[in-house]
Amino acid sequence: MAYNLLKGKKGIIFGALNDNSIAWKVAERVVEEGAEIVLTNTPVSIRLGTINTLAEQCNSIVIPADATNVEELENLVDKALEHFGGKFDFVLHSVGMSPNVRKGRAYTDLDYSFMDKTLDISAVSFHKLLQTLYKRDALNEWGSVVALSYIAAERAFAGYSDMADAKAMLQSIARNFGVIYGAERKVRINTVSQSPTPTTAGQGISGMQMMFDFADHMSPLGNASASECADYIVTLFSDFTRKVTMQNLYHDGGYSSAGLTERLITDYIAPKE
Amino acid sequence: MAYNLLKGKKGIIFGALNDNSIAWKVAERVVEEGAEIVLTNTPVSIRLGTINTLAEQCNSIVIPADATNVEELENLVDKALEHFGGKFDFVLHSVGMSPNVRKGRAYTDLDYSFMDKTLDISAVSFHKLLQTLYKRDALNEWGSVVALSYIAAERAFAGYSDMADAKAMLQSIARNFGVIYGAERKVRINTVSQSPTPTTAGQGISGMQMMFDFADHMSPLGNASASECADYIVTLFSDFTRKVTMQNLYHDGGYSSAGLTERLITDYIAPKE
Amino acid sequence: MAYNLLKGKKGIIFGALNDNSIAWKVAERVVEEGAEIVLTNTPVSIRLGTINTLAEQCNSIVIPADATNVEELENLVDKALEHFGGKFDFVLHSVGMSPNVRKGRAYTDLDYSFMDKTLDISAVSFHKLLQTLYKRDALNEWGSVVALSYIAAERAFAGYSDMADAKAMLQSIARNFGVIYGAERKVRINTVSQSPTPTTAGQGISGMQMMFDFADHMSPLGNASASECADYIVTLFSDFTRKVTMQNLYHDGGYSSAGLTERLITDYIAPKE
Amino acid sequence: MAYNLLKGKKGIIFGALNDNSIAWKVAERVVEEGAEIVLTNTPVSIRLGTINTLAEQCNSIVIPADATNVEELENLVDKALEHFGGKFDFVLHSVGMSPNVRKGRAYTDLDYSFMDKTLDISAVSFHKLLQTLYKRDALNEWGSVVALSYIAAERAFAGYSDMADAKAMLQSIARNFGVIYGAERKVRINTVSQSPTPTTAGQGISGMQMMFDFADHMSPLGNASASECADYIVTLFSDFTRKVTMQNLYHDGGYSSAGLTERLITDYIAPKE
Repeated sequence: MAYNLLKGKKGIIFGALNDNSIAWKVAERVVEEGAEIVLTNTPVSIRLGTINTLAEQCNSIVIPADATNVEELENLVDKALEHFGGKFDFVLHSVGMSPNVRKGRAYTDLDYSFMDKTLDISAVSFHKLLQTLYKRDALNEWGSVVALSYIAAERAFAGYSDMADAKAMLQSIARNFGVIYGAERKVRINTVSQSPTPTTAGQGISGMQMMFDFADHMSPLGNASASECADYIVTLFSDFTRKVTMQNLYHDGGYSSAGLTERLITDYIAPKE
Repeated sequence: MAYNLLKGKKGIIFGALNDNSIAWKVAERVVEEGAEIVLTNTPVSIRLGTINTLAEQCNSIVIPADATNVEELENLVDKALEHFGGKFDFVLHSVGMSPNVRKGRAYTDLDYSFMDKTLDISAVSFHKLLQTLYKRDALNEWGSVVALSYIAAERAFAGYSDMADAKAMLQSIARNFGVIYGAERKVRINTVSQSPTPTTAGQGISGMQMMFDFADHMSPLGNASASECADYIVTLFSDFTRKVTMQNLYHDGGYSSAGLTERLITDYIAPKE
Repeated sequence: MAYNLLKGKKGIIFGALNDNSIAWKVAERVVEEGAEIVLTNTPVSIRLGTINTLAEQCNSIVIPADATNVEELENLVDKALEHFGGKFDFVLHSVGMSPNVRKGRAYTDLDYSFMDKTLDISAVSFHKLLQTLYKRDALNEWGSVVALSYIAAERAFAGYSDMADAKAMLQSIARNFGVIYGAERKVRINTVSQSPTPTTAGQGISGMQMMFDFADHMSPLGNASASECADYIVTLFSDFTRKVTMQNLYHDGGYSSAGLTERLITDYIAPKE
Repeated sequence: MAYNLLKGKKGIIFGALNDNSIAWKVAERVVEEGAEIVLTNTPVSIRLGTINTLAEQCNSIVIPADATNVEELENLVDKALEHFGGKFDFVLHSVGMSPNVRKGRAYTDLDYSFMDKTLDISAVSFHKLLQTLYKRDALNEWGSVVALSYIAAERAFAGYSDMADAKAMLQSIARNFGVIYGAERKVRINTVSQSPTPTTAGQGISGMQMMFDFADHMSPLGNASASECADYIVTLFSDFTRKVTMQNLYHDGGYSSAGLTERLITDYIAPKE
């Protein structure tokens, strides 16, 4: 069901690889809600994935950009300004990758050139994006920027490795850029801490299915899906949430505030006969 | 502008005294967004305020209830079920009062019979409401309950006194009832931690205007108004936020995540010539 | 091993029932570290437990007091001032009980006269104690007050019921009284959020052993014992922590910051053959 | 006054530049409390500062090491193992620097090669240190590692710039390494979030004195000094805090839990005549 909640709004969506991606669902939903979008991803992700299908479906264009490369971000923002015929209103940052996780390096045996890449791709890229938007003055007043995070930024999850450190930094960037962008130009910046989601990116993390099931049992409402996440992000792009900024918002079925659930006790903890 | 975001939804709004009340603005906004509502307040607040004007405007009824009285809550819920012809979807709890604050008792000189009242009115009433809704099975699946809170629940504010303790408890009740209501019946329960707002209730707190201005300077987007709070609460009652539960959500222009803003430095801290 | 860390310091210890009690261990440790103490508990706990044995061992006296009764607290503080020949330096509040938990009432079926008692015994008693100390000006500068809490104040634990709400309020009282007592008289007030501990009080909570084992698996260092808690509290009473106040301090083997541990995966989550 | 609290314990102290440094005070205090230490800093800091004076005073040696260089860290740890004749017990990480702050680059105009350095020096260095200790198995059971942090990791402070992001990451590393090091070898890892402190490093931050005074007014007990921080860190290295791990511990006179203090109102907010 659609409400035209984003009618007249325009924005950029990073990170739609294929139809498992949260960014893919966000793109679909914001367009259903009346927004115009530009899609972007790295050239290699564009090749490996199916973003062009999404672009057709959303009547949008794809502008390739490596989010770690300031020049490519500048090109992206300039092209988007041109495409939209002026400033735009929202951006989704759904970008993250850890070579250490991919290569199966333990957190006690990190490769530091890999870690630099984890940080650059998953956290510094967010600052580069915001700085580019700010310098180009690309966002309208009451614009909204959202980046995707995970609760590993607050608590240690075996196996999530240096992605956790990157997410902690990502959330910090939202606060530190938000305090300035908000005061000077009324732009809000938040992170959404989403339930573990069975995306292609998530599949690189060892024991993903176990973490997923455990989290589902610890979440009174069950894990939040990619589609539900897209719904939630629509509200954050809408004019209904203008005064919410610099927050890390849990979209997780209650997981973050649950210490011990009945369902977890029944299925995992209580002694079996 | 209205989007029919709550079309087909029904709910109860507590605490609309007059048109300064956050609850008043919520009532107006949810009705604009297509909801049907029942209004409630204590008999004395109904007499002192202008809720009947709001009821007319919102095409709703007023059912008096003292939120500290379980029987009156049961009566309210029963009547609402009857009025709506079945279960409903949302409830706003905007109830709070401290006799200690009203009487100007310092936090180091509390009257404990007053404190019992503060807790009963401002926190236990929320449990009584939830327990009544739960026992009556009054809420539809994916129903949403919101209570209003304040950051004094997390940090000590001179003058906020035992209301702070009540708000801390209120937020705890949201988590503890939420873990059960979510798992068993898919109902979500959240608190919104709102900027200081110049309502009639707020006027009882000493130095309210100073706190208001200071908070405004510490908030990159400025303090959130009652109307903006109403907008935000609409999203929490809508189907766009189904997997958000047991959270305390800051709706405060960024105040909660700001340590020191440029505007605060300029207007309060930097030496004047 | 003893270091004379509390040499010359004097204080009151609430809540030592028997040698399983955290308060019992604290009493032993602070005396080993050179402190003089007064013990207190309710008359009924004094009768049911073995506090007189502890008093002999610690060369202390026992002054009965119901922590919910201001007059009895005043009497206690007056007697302690007399006994010590002047002001004292520290107080441990280890007081808590929920009739709802004891009677097995579900959190969705609370008896509200029971809940009032839970709050009065487990949270308001802390305010009454602090207000009495403050009015009597009973604590020396750089005095230290500690109350025992539990992580259920922040996350919902099935079965912990209204004790969670009381603990959330307890932590709030520490902040709100701490902001005043600190500024005016250099007294610090903190709560220690302790691992689940197999005390007599804890035995009232259903599934305590399961919660204990689960928490142990989620704690990288394992659950903290009552003796370890006593060690930790010694540091909070000492002059080494003078600038720590209004904090909730986790003493839990890392539980609070762990999302998922290897040991939890191995013993609870990984599929068994 | 000394208590022999660290008698028999050995450790490494990073970051003592001169007698304003927190690390300097920590070195003095731990030695007073009976510990043996090795001092370390970068070659350039050794040249610019007066660490050799401290070494004499503490009867310790200085082993130069750049904390961003794994080989130099390995050399340091190997030499320390040799010097101590075996494993050791504690490490203080007091290392941080932002070229962006030094060069006065606004947070909206960061130089990304500078930011890489900020992260490497102020955050990744902590992981490199921990990984080196872990791989060398250099710490005894119940060893303790502490890194210094600042509340800008949680809230945005105008002017603190990319150091805030680095501190957020530092605290994340403490959690993520702590979950493993604790479970496998009983080593605890914490960060201390210290009041603004007038060290030589702090002098690089613009408006430091203003931030210092403001924080002092917002802290019920006043800002914590470097010496008080040293006292606190002694407790974290001692056997009294064995079960505290993966925590960010505020040592700040109550600042972090204060929303608004009377003293702030009087001196900054209340209208002057």
